[in-house]
Amino acid sequence: MISVKINRTHYIEDINADMKGQEVILGGWVEDLRKMGKMTFLTLRDVTGITQIILTDDVMKSIDDITRQSVVRVTGKIQDTKARDFECEIKADEINVLAKAVHPLPIDPLGRLESHIDNRLNSRALDMRNQKTASIFKIRHHVLASLRKIFIEKKFTEITTPKIIGSASEGGANLFSLDYFGKQAYLAQSPQLYKEQMTIGLERVFEIASFYRAEKSHTGRHLSEFTSVDIEAAFMDYTDVMNVLEDLVLNTFKYVSENCKKEQEIIGNKITMPNGPFKKITYSQALEELNRKDAKLEFGDDLLDSHLRIIEENHPDFYFITDWPIKLKPFYIMEKEDNPELSESFDLQYGYLELSSGGSRLHNPEKIKIRLSEQNLDPAKFSEHLQAFDWGMPPHAGWGLGLERLLTVILGIDNVREVILYPRDPERLKP
Amino acid sequence: MISVKINRTHYIEDINADMKGQEVILGGWVEDLRKMGKMTFLTLRDVTGITQIILTDDVMKSIDDITRQSVVRVTGKIQDTKARDFECEIKADEINVLAKAVHPLPIDPLGRLESHIDNRLNSRALDMRNQKTASIFKIRHHVLASLRKIFIEKKFTEITTPKIIGSASEGGANLFSLDYFGKQAYLAQSPQLYKEQMTIGLERVFEIASFYRAEKSHTGRHLSEFTSVDIEAAFMDYTDVMNVLEDLVLNTFKYVSENCKKEQEIIGNKITMPNGPFKKITYSQALEELNRKDAKLEFGDDLLDSHLRIIEENHPDFYFITDWPIKLKPFYIMEKEDNPELSESFDLQYGYLELSSGGSRLHNPEKIKIRLSEQNLDPAKFSEHLQAFDWGMPPHAGWGLGLERLLTVILGIDNVREVILYPRDPERLKP
Repeated sequence: MISVKINRTHYIEDINADMKGQEVILGGWVEDLRKMGKMTFLTLRDVTGITQIILTDDVMKSIDDITRQSVVRVTGKIQDTKARDFECEIKADEINVLAKAVHPLPIDPLGRLESHIDNRLNSRALDMRNQKTASIFKIRHHVLASLRKIFIEKKFTEITTPKIIGSASEGGANLFSLDYFGKQAYLAQSPQLYKEQMTIGLERVFEIASFYRAEKSHTGRHLSEFTSVDIEAAFMDYTDVMNVLEDLVLNTFKYVSENCKKEQEIIGNKITMPNGPFKKITYSQALEELNRKDAKLEFGDDLLDSHLRIIEENHPDFYFITDWPIKLKPFYIMEKEDNPELSESFDLQYGYLELSSGGSRLHNPEKIKIRLSEQNLDPAKFSEHLQAFDWGMPPHAGWGLGLERLLTVILGIDNVREVILYPRDPERLKP
Repeated sequence: MISVKINRTHYIEDINADMKGQEVILGGWVEDLRKMGKMTFLTLRDVTGITQIILTDDVMKSIDDITRQSVVRVTGKIQDTKARDFECEIKADEINVLAKAVHPLPIDPLGRLESHIDNRLNSRALDMRNQKTASIFKIRHHVLASLRKIFIEKKFTEITTPKIIGSASEGGANLFSLDYFGKQAYLAQSPQLYKEQMTIGLERVFEIASFYRAEKSHTGRHLSEFTSVDIEAAFMDYTDVMNVLEDLVLNTFKYVSENCKKEQEIIGNKITMPNGPFKKITYSQALEELNRKDAKLEFGDDLLDSHLRIIEENHPDFYFITDWPIKLKPFYIMEKEDNPELSESFDLQYGYLELSSGGSRLHNPEKIKIRLSEQNLDPAKFSEHLQAFDWGMPPHAGWGLGLERLLTVILGIDNVREVILYPRDPERLKP
């Protein structure tokens, strides 16, 4: 391995036939290598694209040995090419091997040989040389940029809530616990209580961050560490925040479909724009639909995965299920004024998949205490949260959206492990 | 508490004298309340500003009682005002109390009575009604927007690395440990190893996220949960990433000073643009400066807080300390080619305060193994990380920047607890 200053002059996507004769320095990975006569044809890839390098035996002899996926630096001149796949090529004056890749590699980074997802995750860094995988994470980058752009336009302030929390908020099931300087602490499952508190001063807040759920689920849609997109807004109710969510989803599909054309092509999935406005069906309507198909559900029964898969038959796209029975919802959700058995709540579904859950929140502390007791939670354990409700807590509403689930819908992929770099689940803690 | 639909029509900053006669619905907090004759003068604040509401006794009698910092909804017409502080006022037709604040409040949200930071943090939600506190977090929001804007322009891809990790990377000191489905796990101190791995496919990556350090420090600059801004870039060395960092700092100061004029005024701290390029002094030069002031340091000694406070006397602003002894730096830092006792490393300082630390990284796995052993770390424990170095690991460099520390410099504040919503330190786990 020779030590050289890199001084890359161009990304591969920035060179073209108009630059004929210009000297460039490129850096990248050897994707393929063929010797024909006295010439070696090397295809070089960087993060932006791929090009062809022509090496004479004279130039090649300066390096002992080279393997596919090794990292090289190439100095050369742009010239016309006869190759059909390229617009131009580089006649190399010099090549340096900066890092040699072993042979064979544990997975095929070109994706010609398909590897099981577990093998790809075990070699995630190498998997990122697979253009499909890299494209997923480039799209994820654009999705995040789109979400934040829309939140900022809608006057939401970005916040960061604590992930290490001193008490088991929201009931305490499925929390990871840790020792915090001798005290018992937990990893936050959501920013729920903190984001509600913040509406008292910042009115509209959002957070995009990792949260933690110690749930022993083994499905393609559960993760122990996941990215949650959260908002909370003063002076809004559940209809208002459903509108924010619908806008966000529609605009993000639009943004990605316009800004990630190359990535969609590589993945082989053209993003199809959903139609707005999204359908809204109430919980009671969903129950009727299900009972017409012999589900034998009664008011108050939760909708299980099996039920949602039946509903998906009629509603394969985005839709809201609204007005859930209050007893199925967390203590902070507001009841409906005209029917306190129901709540101002919703889930955003894509077919059977729940993407988001939200609602109007209670802002009257007395009502919250009653709800806590009804759910066998001790109001005293929530005293630090509840005190904020005596300080002028505005009416507010909000939701949480699972980023990985949204990405699977945007990308047409059926496993959340494909859209998170290093997934964590009950079996997977490494790499 | 009356249940009313809010239907706010305007933010306070959006109403002005040109809208005279127009009916508006506002929502906000009662900042002050004075009865004069048959009129009540109420100052109403929302997240955007403050205005005056005029209420007749007739309108006032619809509500029993009202306290300062209660949340109200006001319907009324815009009219001219005689008050010097306002451009216009609202003659109320209706007022509803949406949430009543207790009296007295635990801290004065107007900040006229100063409260100790511990009391403010214990009532953080109410503290957010203090315009100085709210302005800090609005500026934080803009700083984040600026950082991401610059990273995106420089072709960095946003990543999210795992915060729950299966082995103690970087040595293992000061890690929080947790039980992960019966396995021992840790909270990540930084994204170091993961971000390095990602350069293999995405070349340039950044992450802004919460990380965790179980250090029993009690200073104004240490937190157990902090926000780290991280980059890692293929085909760059330490000089390149110092340039990225300098650009980022200068542009963020510029962005905030242009976009947060109102907030700077409220805080009472006008942001002063730093001058670029930042000075670079080597570790050896720093040692000389210190020894001229009788510090009696030898090559290889670390620079302690007390030393950095001496250096600050000559360098009160931003500057880099570069080329540290290799043995003072983590195992992944690259040695200098012309002197392997030194390293391609730097800290970005603001006076005595270390803001960022970075360098060129080793990309040769054999060298990393030697360095691990020299630092009494077991290479076998890093096997999952090291395997990526056999797959074509490019030369790369990067840094981590403490967001809270940067914010204290931008804002001219001396305690990181002021710039994080709910700080965590050895004593503070709540709220």
